[in-house]
Amino acid sequence: MNTIEWVDGKIRLLDQTRLPLEEVYLDLTDYQSLVRAIKEMRIRGAPALGVAAAYGVALGAAAIDEESKEAFESRLGPVYEAIVASRPTAVNIRWAVERMRRVASAHRDVSGVKKALLNEALAIHRQDEAINHRIGAHGADLLQGKGTVMTHCNAGALATTGYGTALGVVRATIERGTALKVMATETRPFLQGSRLTAWELARDQIDVTLITDSMAGHFLKKGDIDCVIVGADRIAANGDVANKIGTYSIAVLAKENAVPFYVAAPISTIDLSISSGEEIPIEERSPEEVLSFAGVQVAPQEVKAANPAFDITPYRYVSAIVTENGIAREPYLEELKALVEMIEE
Amino acid sequence: MNTIEWVDGKIRLLDQTRLPLEEVYLDLTDYQSLVRAIKEMRIRGAPALGVAAAYGVALGAAAIDEESKEAFESRLGPVYEAIVASRPTAVNIRWAVERMRRVASAHRDVSGVKKALLNEALAIHRQDEAINHRIGAHGADLLQGKGTVMTHCNAGALATTGYGTALGVVRATIERGTALKVMATETRPFLQGSRLTAWELARDQIDVTLITDSMAGHFLKKGDIDCVIVGADRIAANGDVANKIGTYSIAVLAKENAVPFYVAAPISTIDLSISSGEEIPIEERSPEEVLSFAGVQVAPQEVKAANPAFDITPYRYVSAIVTENGIAREPYLEELKALVEMIEE
Repeated sequence: MNTIEWVDGKIRLLDQTRLPLEEVYLDLTDYQSLVRAIKEMRIRGAPALGVAAAYGVALGAAAIDEESKEAFESRLGPVYEAIVASRPTAVNIRWAVERMRRVASAHRDVSGVKKALLNEALAIHRQDEAINHRIGAHGADLLQGKGTVMTHCNAGALATTGYGTALGVVRATIERGTALKVMATETRPFLQGSRLTAWELARDQIDVTLITDSMAGHFLKKGDIDCVIVGADRIAANGDVANKIGTYSIAVLAKENAVPFYVAAPISTIDLSISSGEEIPIEERSPEEVLSFAGVQVAPQEVKAANPAFDITPYRYVSAIVTENGIAREPYLEELKALVEMIEE
Repeated sequence: MNTIEWVDGKIRLLDQTRLPLEEVYLDLTDYQSLVRAIKEMRIRGAPALGVAAAYGVALGAAAIDEESKEAFESRLGPVYEAIVASRPTAVNIRWAVERMRRVASAHRDVSGVKKALLNEALAIHRQDEAINHRIGAHGADLLQGKGTVMTHCNAGALATTGYGTALGVVRATIERGTALKVMATETRPFLQGSRLTAWELARDQIDVTLITDSMAGHFLKKGDIDCVIVGADRIAANGDVANKIGTYSIAVLAKENAVPFYVAAPISTIDLSISSGEEIPIEERSPEEVLSFAGVQVAPQEVKAANPAFDITPYRYVSAIVTENGIAREPYLEELKALVEMIEE
């Protein structure tokens, strides 16, 4: 299974809107199809979107039939714009497009630019894979001997380009020979746990048991869970973690039952300009997601619903943060800074 | 809205399987229809089932066309049996049928028995209503001045005969003039919060906001919730509470954020023969409820799911237990015993 792949001059991506019932791959032959696929949520997850955007630029460039660099560049401009506009809030798309733009300006001849753009997209893809594997390795060091891991939402292969952050740690641990089991919360309202995490783990023959979010505390108290590991959307300088709604509850319940709570995320998630989680605004999504379930209306029409997309887990509930550069623990202020400033070998 | 009512010689009940999208009342003219309605979950909730069973016996008796007491009683036997068998684990059905059976044997002539059985069923109904109102009054004393209450599952009018235990406290508080608001968890996997609690509160014009179970911690931390109030399936002598899965998580999150956590339940829920919650077996229900909803599959077919129907909240997370005889606090062992032994005025 590959979230996204470059195959014979085309972008091949797994259509995540068809999961878990169908595994359908789309071959995209022009950048407009990629823009549509992003808008329609056929691919999601910040790291995966960055890679998709880079391939989209390469695909758009390949189709431009111009000999002069000027004419070529003037036709590449709208490609950049359309890709950035496909999901305006996704920082990784913007970041990848900027990186591609710099490569384009560094080359003189058109065929050289086309080749360089494809190479850069492949490099961004390989870099994401490498980061996940390094997170996995550091996480596996941490987890040794742990029998059952609880996770929330999908910080897996489907959110990245194929290995995962939190689920990358699970995969790396299993690759070292531990028979690790996973208990996954369904993650209402959008059900990333049922639809994506359960699907990708089952597909890799990893032992996974699905529970509703309301059951997490029960199993943590029962002593069935050896540690919790989740991803992150953003990490503040003090170690406060913004992640999918429900993460905070699990962190409190883990601490109450003396179960370690780990966060696995790339260095790019750490935002040292933010001193604490209180500065992170919480996105409020449509009440419709709460009032219906898998497309079926389950509550009276006139009822109000709240739908914060994520919550903040204060650093005091976080046992460790696993990155590609190593593991941070309290005091996070110092340890996260050291990891961010670490020069890549 | 009435969960169940005796109207012109018939049982009228609200079909809970049609909620929240349709409010449909069924008029049952024979006891066989009642047995079917119970089996099909058209009525649920322990106190409501006890009342339904009593009316069922009255209905069955009324249809028996015999003059002699012996012939009458021999035809009433199968009625008792069919009603008890409609939901074999429901203690309240058995209790109500036994109470009806005692009434039947205390009368000589058939028409006297028929009249006495109906009167007993009406008395059981009125008694349930009275208990709920007394719980409501004690709870309202406790809640004075509280702005927003969080609740879980449905401990409302729909689980009883019309006022509710936890939601009875909400109603009593509002009747005293407080503009109380309710935040209700949807209560996966069976969605009693979305389908029943949101529906009955909206219908009574009580301000209700629905959230997913995963959001409870976020709102407790945010300071939006003044207290939590839930029902109970069973309460041990030490104050440990068995209730719908997810209750324990909310209790821990409430304590962590210094929000009082109250349980409202009739005295009949307190089981002094059980010393702690650890002795209460946890019913495991079908994984299908977790893997799908309303016929829509949301997880891959081959994935395992756990589905414990309830959890145990240790007494140390419970701020107070509200019953029709008054309020118990720590030490629960003494205070619950005193409430149970209290003679009704």
